[in-house]
Amino acid sequence: MPEAGPRAGGDDLAAWMSHQGERAERALDAALPAVAGAVDGLGAGGLLEAMRYAVLGGGKRVRPLLVYAAGEVSGAAPEVLDAAACAVEFIHAYSLVHDDMPCMDDDEMRRGKPTVHKQYGEAMAMLVGDALQALAFEALVKPLRVAGSLAMAKVPVAEMVGVLATAAGANGMAGGQALDLGAVGKRLSRRQLEAMHRSKTGAMLAASVRLGLLGGGLPAPDTAAAAAAYADAVGLAFQVVDDILDVTTDSGTLGKTAGKDMAQDKPTYVSILGLAESQRLASDLGRRARGALEPLGEPALRLAQLADFVVDRVN
Amino acid sequence: MPEAGPRAGGDDLAAWMSHQGERAERALDAALPAVAGAVDGLGAGGLLEAMRYAVLGGGKRVRPLLVYAAGEVSGAAPEVLDAAACAVEFIHAYSLVHDDMPCMDDDEMRRGKPTVHKQYGEAMAMLVGDALQALAFEALVKPLRVAGSLAMAKVPVAEMVGVLATAAGANGMAGGQALDLGAVGKRLSRRQLEAMHRSKTGAMLAASVRLGLLGGGLPAPDTAAAAAAYADAVGLAFQVVDDILDVTTDSGTLGKTAGKDMAQDKPTYVSILGLAESQRLASDLGRRARGALEPLGEPALRLAQLADFVVDRVN
Repeated sequence: MPEAGPRAGGDDLAAWMSHQGERAERALDAALPAVAGAVDGLGAGGLLEAMRYAVLGGGKRVRPLLVYAAGEVSGAAPEVLDAAACAVEFIHAYSLVHDDMPCMDDDEMRRGKPTVHKQYGEAMAMLVGDALQALAFEALVKPLRVAGSLAMAKVPVAEMVGVLATAAGANGMAGGQALDLGAVGKRLSRRQLEAMHRSKTGAMLAASVRLGLLGGGLPAPDTAAAAAAYADAVGLAFQVVDDILDVTTDSGTLGKTAGKDMAQDKPTYVSILGLAESQRLASDLGRRARGALEPLGEPALRLAQLADFVVDRVN
Repeated sequence: MPEAGPRAGGDDLAAWMSHQGERAERALDAALPAVAGAVDGLGAGGLLEAMRYAVLGGGKRVRPLLVYAAGEVSGAAPEVLDAAACAVEFIHAYSLVHDDMPCMDDDEMRRGKPTVHKQYGEAMAMLVGDALQALAFEALVKPLRVAGSLAMAKVPVAEMVGVLATAAGANGMAGGQALDLGAVGKRLSRRQLEAMHRSKTGAMLAASVRLGLLGGGLPAPDTAAAAAAYADAVGLAFQVVDDILDVTTDSGTLGKTAGKDMAQDKPTYVSILGLAESQRLASDLGRRARGALEPLGEPALRLAQLADFVVDRVN
């Protein structure tokens, strides 16, 4: 763990988020294939253009911000953090593209623009999601492929790939989506709802924190445990706030269709606990997240601030 | 490269293929999550069951066989080869599930069974494909996550992950699928058809060979070049034979719908070159593949035999 000390940008969260958000945007742009590379005039460029449409120019970049904030704890190399930030955002972007398709949530608006299948057709949207998932793993290992690089020797690359794959797969995000499919029209217990969200959203948020840590080498067990407790609370808070915003905010502010959980008869924290109790739960989870970070001291400042941001956000 | 010498199983290709095919089947079964792990009675087991349905009990396992055959050249550890074999087959299986969906090829029969979306619905088929792609990367790195294992220290894990991701993504298989979408109803040149198939099928076949080599450490440049020339020829041969079988063989033998390329007005080697010329091309490519292996000597025997198998297969 690096020494705590004065840092560029001070403690102003908004400035830090803006700076790191732009950094993520540049990294994503650089990691996406250039459209100019179309093969033989056959239209491969269409896929590359649609991938860029799906990823760039929108989104809160919460997952990359968690990677960068965890990187302040681990002292990971900037290029390793950029790679991990791209990886988690590519996974997130692919999941939105597939989730919006007619056979899933059938949504027409995302990040204030037509969804990918509305813009490019269903077959292309399927391929965009598939190619973005592959790109996530390609981007993650890119700075680590230089054989014999001493700076990269301590990075546990197999562990990082495994963490990302597990969080994205059947025991993580994709598994949570399957639970979500099965939950439509059912009355879930709070425990069941939490189990669903721990997989569907929580797993990738936790993976973002873990990747930021692992980028600096295998963390000490107490550091890993503190970060895991933090990530679990932030992940649940994120979903509780999502459910609150779905009923309290209009589609224009959200950048996606508001009220759709209720319209699709999906169980949410608000439908199970009510609005006031959900708001109290979000605040509690935010405090729990901050509390979990105490053993990590000053380097965890940005992680702590991001917990507040997740609870207080308006879209 | 290990010394050439007598080997168990001798030179009988059928026995070797049967043995390695069963080995791949066991490895795939072990790498797929157990259905028993369903969370909270919410039906996550449905996804896991559908993933097993999509992967097990069918398929020629050509990609795993290429991994194992390349492993005889590199001397890679058995568990690393099993991991790579699972990885390439999971990618292949996911691509079939998504490719069969109504928004793509809309097929109802695969490996002699109803396709995944026919059996489990479209939303589940989408998630099965997504989760299988993640599982490919999880399986690939699994034996390499043991920190400090000396036996694994020489395995270039970042390079292996990058090879798999690139072959599966926008500049590989998914890109080839996008070219395929754009080619329907068009008259392609032979060069354009080859460019499409190098991405769509060839990239993952070549990745199978490369992963089998990399599992034993970074190969010498001449070994890598010989294997790459081999893989390119085998990949094209595989597709030429696929196109021939589509018009010469019935659906029962193929285990999938025969004649569908013509029905969907897709350009094929047969439609561009005619049947006799396509058969001659397949034989030429088989010879070219064998010739490329000459510098590798006796350890490349199984790769050479697999080239013959790819050209002579009947389904």
